[in-house]
Amino acid sequence: MTTSSTGSGGNGDIGDGRTAGGGEGGSNTDGIDPDVRAELVRLRESIDNIDAAVVHMLAERFKCTQQVGHLKAAHHLPPADPSREAQQIARLRRLAENANLDPAFAEKLLNFVIAEVIRHHERIAEDTNTRG
Amino acid sequence: MTTSSTGSGGNGDIGDGRTAGGGEGGSNTDGIDPDVRAELVRLRESIDNIDAAVVHMLAERFKCTQQVGHLKAAHHLPPADPSREAQQIARLRRLAENANLDPAFAEKLLNFVIAEVIRHHERIAEDTNTRG
Repeated sequence: MTTSSTGSGGNGDIGDGRTAGGGEGGSNTDGIDPDVRAELVRLRESIDNIDAAVVHMLAERFKCTQQVGHLKAAHHLPPADPSREAQQIARLRRLAENANLDPAFAEKLLNFVIAEVIRHHERIAEDTNTRG
Repeated sequence: MTTSSTGSGGNGDIGDGRTAGGGEGGSNTDGIDPDVRAELVRLRESIDNIDAAVVHMLAERFKCTQQVGHLKAAHHLPPADPSREAQQIARLRRLAENANLDPAFAEKLLNFVIAEVIRHHERIAEDTNTRG
């Protein structure tokens, strides 16, 4: 596994929205060395497995936050808990660092998921709260 | 588990950046019914477990995409593969739907992760490509 310079660019292998050369229809890995292709397929299968795992983990996470939302609403608890939030961010950053993942990315990801949780809860509130 | 109206707001339980009432220091779940608190703790533990799992899954995913990046660079393959990308998005949306997760959210999440992959690859390219 060596690196060589190909200039900056996607290399994402996962759809970065920038097309490489208009190769529509058919993968642009057609015609490459069979060993290289096999290695690429192996890695892509792992990426796909991981993506499926993450999607299912997040589906489960939203089930939990949904329950938290209903619980808090039913017991008139404040929606946000700053000390809990601070703990979560600190913990995630620590976990990310140990896993060799950029802690700033982990924090951004948490915020991204949180934005979706808020969207869910706003929907719950709209459904239950019919004010003019 | 019933819903009641508390107006729109976080309900995120995971840090939405909006503080609920300036309750600094100490959790704002202090003084609530022990059964409710126990339920909240149970849900929060699940959320924390899931977050740890996701962080580790993503660390593993970046290891894979890093390898893909090096492989493509070494064999002068184009960085992006539009047909692969389209397949990934379609598959993730399908998985999300089956898991009761908003497919649009799954797609946005993939794009969020992809942006980080691109950042990684740009760093690789910068490290290996010292152009004036």
